[in-house]
Amino acid sequence: MTDPRQIEEWTDKLAELAVTGANVQPGQLVAVTSFVGKEYLARKVAAAAYRRGAKYVDVVTFDQWVKRERLLHAAEDTLDYIPPWMSQRLLHLSEVHAARITLSGPHAPTALEGVDPARAGRDLLPYLPETGTVVNSMTTNWNIVPAPTPAWAEAVYPELDPQAAYEKLWEDVAHICRLDATDPGEAWVERVAELKSSAARLNDRAFDAIRLHGPGTDLTIGLLPSARWQAGDMSTVDGTRHFPNIPTEENFTTPDPERVDGYVSATMPLELAGSVISGIRVEFQGGRATGIDADRGADAIRAAASSDEGASRLGELALVDREGRIGPLGRVFFDTLIDENAASHIALGGGYDHAVVGEDDKKRVNKSRIHVDFMIGSNALAVDGITRDGDAVPVLRDGAWQI
Amino acid sequence: MTDPRQIEEWTDKLAELAVTGANVQPGQLVAVTSFVGKEYLARKVAAAAYRRGAKYVDVVTFDQWVKRERLLHAAEDTLDYIPPWMSQRLLHLSEVHAARITLSGPHAPTALEGVDPARAGRDLLPYLPETGTVVNSMTTNWNIVPAPTPAWAEAVYPELDPQAAYEKLWEDVAHICRLDATDPGEAWVERVAELKSSAARLNDRAFDAIRLHGPGTDLTIGLLPSARWQAGDMSTVDGTRHFPNIPTEENFTTPDPERVDGYVSATMPLELAGSVISGIRVEFQGGRATGIDADRGADAIRAAASSDEGASRLGELALVDREGRIGPLGRVFFDTLIDENAASHIALGGGYDHAVVGEDDKKRVNKSRIHVDFMIGSNALAVDGITRDGDAVPVLRDGAWQI
Repeated sequence: MTDPRQIEEWTDKLAELAVTGANVQPGQLVAVTSFVGKEYLARKVAAAAYRRGAKYVDVVTFDQWVKRERLLHAAEDTLDYIPPWMSQRLLHLSEVHAARITLSGPHAPTALEGVDPARAGRDLLPYLPETGTVVNSMTTNWNIVPAPTPAWAEAVYPELDPQAAYEKLWEDVAHICRLDATDPGEAWVERVAELKSSAARLNDRAFDAIRLHGPGTDLTIGLLPSARWQAGDMSTVDGTRHFPNIPTEENFTTPDPERVDGYVSATMPLELAGSVISGIRVEFQGGRATGIDADRGADAIRAAASSDEGASRLGELALVDREGRIGPLGRVFFDTLIDENAASHIALGGGYDHAVVGEDDKKRVNKSRIHVDFMIGSNALAVDGITRDGDAVPVLRDGAWQI
Repeated sequence: MTDPRQIEEWTDKLAELAVTGANVQPGQLVAVTSFVGKEYLARKVAAAAYRRGAKYVDVVTFDQWVKRERLLHAAEDTLDYIPPWMSQRLLHLSEVHAARITLSGPHAPTALEGVDPARAGRDLLPYLPETGTVVNSMTTNWNIVPAPTPAWAEAVYPELDPQAAYEKLWEDVAHICRLDATDPGEAWVERVAELKSSAARLNDRAFDAIRLHGPGTDLTIGLLPSARWQAGDMSTVDGTRHFPNIPTEENFTTPDPERVDGYVSATMPLELAGSVISGIRVEFQGGRATGIDADRGADAIRAAASSDEGASRLGELALVDREGRIGPLGRVFFDTLIDENAASHIALGGGYDHAVVGEDDKKRVNKSRIHVDFMIGSNALAVDGITRDGDAVPVLRDGAWQI
């Protein structure tokens, strides 16, 4: 059994890491998005942010069990409704250049069981349609960290008893977030430097497209001419450097939303605003997802993908090598923050303006109120870069960089 | 030991009672203000509201442990800051004529221990300065019910073990809220009818002032010429009848804010936005609280009373007889909703426009961003009505109506 003081110590370190990752500045408004059951961490994040001189720490807590009641009972024509304060709050955070911290991981993975996936796919709260615009405006310094809860742990480790599952999930999160380092913040500075070096090698090649092929997948994704591969290291318009995701093990860019062709099979289930979707298969033609299927929850992702014009096109392509700490664990965590860093992935919906340089390309970045990542990578997935001359250059084989 | 199914059953009944008390209408936006640890009730309130046809149930959850971090660490000049979305949300509820439900009772009574009361008194969140205006505009149908938590129970029953304390508090809440009735909503219709009859007798007398005298108290409170005594039975501008407080055992009116003279001693401690204040003594001259003292937490109530011009004047006078279910329990619940219905009380801060009839009197109702009730009644407190001729008429003696 893990010493309870160990979890306490990890909680302290994770809270510090969240405010370090977001790089909370003195005098800043700090918004925390949390879920029921994560109070232990939200409180420590608040303490850590106030110690750094935060003006106010604004914790908003969601509850998927309340969402369940909505999805079970509310009238069909109300399911797109979002209370105006939520958007007003996010836009205000952008306006005053606030810090934003999110505590991720499904607090109640069974809450939406038995709910009609088509209805569930219409309510992605607490994710807001304005998120993409705010992220792209680079006005806020932000960070997402995972925060274990007992119910989440049971979903990840159903074979263990609840207490053991909770301790095991904490061990994983501590390992994945590098809480074992003397200075976890510094450990991430070092890891991000490595990721920037693989991004630089990808940028040097200036590929025209990326082809992903392996079991159930053969997809070619066009890149915009001025595309830049990124690591999880951003700076706001005020120059506040921050690490948006901890963990981060990916190199990502935003693709050409009109040049995606082929088919792709997800290698992991996806947790989408409370719903679990597994066995996803998508066909693309001319950039658009023309067919979406899944073993479970297909209607939820179909509903999300029909939210608006851009919701059926790609906003992100990310490559993940086998050097990270998540893939080797061989577990599905049902948390996009963790799972997307285990394997290469793509996202339907809004893209990242900062991942292209040219003004014309920025206009071509996909726009949508949604951004849904799903994992398509594995060591069996081969990744090639397609040059402007049409040659295929091996990029990843068996999870190892070839460039 | 109470059967756990009993608490489950009470929770169901209390949730039903909250939406019945607020009289949630089909198609209405329903705002729920809750605290960490009350999720079990918030979820059932959401379910009950959706079953009545609510458009959306917007649960916002506060955490006094996060407030503690603010009060310990935040800079002095930030303590009055309120994130704009909170006020925007409340004003929107008023604009669209929403329902509002609050789950009361201190979820963490020890959270502010050791915090400087003067700092604590400056942060009354989740209470908002706009609350009084919204209540007076009668645009929202609303209800407050108590929601037990283990930590609250320990504060009320420190002599019991935690589980027994929790069960006992639930028993009290069930008794106080009349959950033992076959139809608790109907039981409150009947109880409110009794309270309206004592209000009518008080109104018939049209007293010029009320004198309260007993141990530590001799206070004369002037009434406005068109003052009307109320019971906890309101209707919105749309005609939606609702019971704002459950329990309610009071007859209240809004006094003349310029005619309050004498001294008063609280008969119970007061829980003020997380701080416990006990042994309160206040002197009034010409309506204004000229001296405020307390055995504990004096600076918190002093800070609140200096929030604005009206914060040191009275907005409410309420008389409570001995017929209610709370007084006989002889317990302090550290929850104003319950405690104020155990004993006669006064409130510093904003008054109720609907408790006066004349347009001139409405202008004279006290205005403030705060509204802080404190309990001054007991069976030892004598209440007299002062006629316009200056005669004293016994109103309450030993907790029994004399009129």
